[in-house]
Amino acid sequence: MGPVGTYNFIAEPFRCDWLDRLTMSSLGNEMINAADFQSAERDFGYRDIRKVNRAWVLSRFVIEMNEMPSSHDHYSISTWVISAMKFFTHRNWSVQSPEGKIYGYGTSVWAMIDLTTRQPADILSVNDGGIMQYVDKDNVVPITGPSRVRMDEKGAELISEIPVTYSDIDTNGHVNSVRYIEHVTDLFPLSWYEQNMLYRIEVAYVAESHFGDRLRFYQDKQSDNVYCFKISSVSPEGEEREACRIKCMFRC
Amino acid sequence: MGPVGTYNFIAEPFRCDWLDRLTMSSLGNEMINAADFQSAERDFGYRDIRKVNRAWVLSRFVIEMNEMPSSHDHYSISTWVISAMKFFTHRNWSVQSPEGKIYGYGTSVWAMIDLTTRQPADILSVNDGGIMQYVDKDNVVPITGPSRVRMDEKGAELISEIPVTYSDIDTNGHVNSVRYIEHVTDLFPLSWYEQNMLYRIEVAYVAESHFGDRLRFYQDKQSDNVYCFKISSVSPEGEEREACRIKCMFRC
Repeated sequence: MGPVGTYNFIAEPFRCDWLDRLTMSSLGNEMINAADFQSAERDFGYRDIRKVNRAWVLSRFVIEMNEMPSSHDHYSISTWVISAMKFFTHRNWSVQSPEGKIYGYGTSVWAMIDLTTRQPADILSVNDGGIMQYVDKDNVVPITGPSRVRMDEKGAELISEIPVTYSDIDTNGHVNSVRYIEHVTDLFPLSWYEQNMLYRIEVAYVAESHFGDRLRFYQDKQSDNVYCFKISSVSPEGEEREACRIKCMFRC
Repeated sequence: MGPVGTYNFIAEPFRCDWLDRLTMSSLGNEMINAADFQSAERDFGYRDIRKVNRAWVLSRFVIEMNEMPSSHDHYSISTWVISAMKFFTHRNWSVQSPEGKIYGYGTSVWAMIDLTTRQPADILSVNDGGIMQYVDKDNVVPITGPSRVRMDEKGAELISEIPVTYSDIDTNGHVNSVRYIEHVTDLFPLSWYEQNMLYRIEVAYVAESHFGDRLRFYQDKQSDNVYCFKISSVSPEGEEREACRIKCMFRC
């Protein structure tokens, strides 16, 4: 088995927006699913490492698209690990049509945690470093890598606050990584999307949010087409801490 | 081509809840997708009838499950039209494992509208009544059919109000039918789902909601395990009207 896993999808009409384009959060969800399939087939998936009390944690996630699949379009997602070190792995994706047209790319950084201590775990200690045999180190993607999402923290404006709900929580027991993307895309009015395509999204994950928390969205508009958000979670006891930052880049 | 279309799915881990079960809204979404695939293959899908300025509108939707697929489970959804009349069709579903275990069933009523007048259109006038050759009239499912969702309107309590957002709006330009289910499942705390499985959901759609509206959720608890909701949409002008009713039935 080679390092690259490729999975076929359909842009299901009810995962597309009213402009008939797959939404960024639906695509992000399928990219994470593809990562899960690819790693499971190579014995380092979520369920494999859960057996040794470990979990994958997404640290940075970037998606950059030339174009989005339209409803009913068949497309595939390829994904592979481009590097694996003690505490981090890098994973890339490409999204393409059956004819080979590239819709876009993704790149990401993942850590592994011990499920008891919630502390970083040594990735290479799992399965005798088996992940190393699937590293495709030269298979780079032509997009800029992740950043920490710099923003004006003081100037950022609190623009929304919502409770964490049942649908936000995934099988890991915390707010699903992609759900933050969905919530951020929901901060823009429909009319905005008529004129502006969200072509790049960059997420820096900081800490988990849980059921019972409330999510606060702070916006820093950096230019007409670049918006950064700090999302913090407020615990039932009122303690607020940063959950993640998201940078949205649009083009007309 | 026979009347029944069967489509394969995987209970993708990030469409499952923290108990590792596919969520009712994710399943409902796949059921609607299966309906779209089945009808498109038989020339009466959304895209086919859009060419003659028509659209399908879901009027009643029932899902009743013995069990939910767990994450990574392969499952299939079969769907067929069980009757077609001038203004309504009835559609059924079954959800099963690759080994033939039945997870559950669905049933529904659909109308067709003229996209210009938004008025009911004659289903049998489209494509020379082509839908009739795919009606599988004896293929009933062993669940109770849809109702109007009777509830105590006066006694129902307003328990939540949220804005319609970008992600709520599907390719038809109004709030996605399944999204109401997701919003209603989000009205229960996580602890509720630890003790109670949502096994049947019944939706009666009344009117469309749009971007700019706010959704209000009125709850009528009919017993310890049966909750009914009236969801109304409030327009920017402040006009409130009923969008749908949803009955949720749980078992311990």
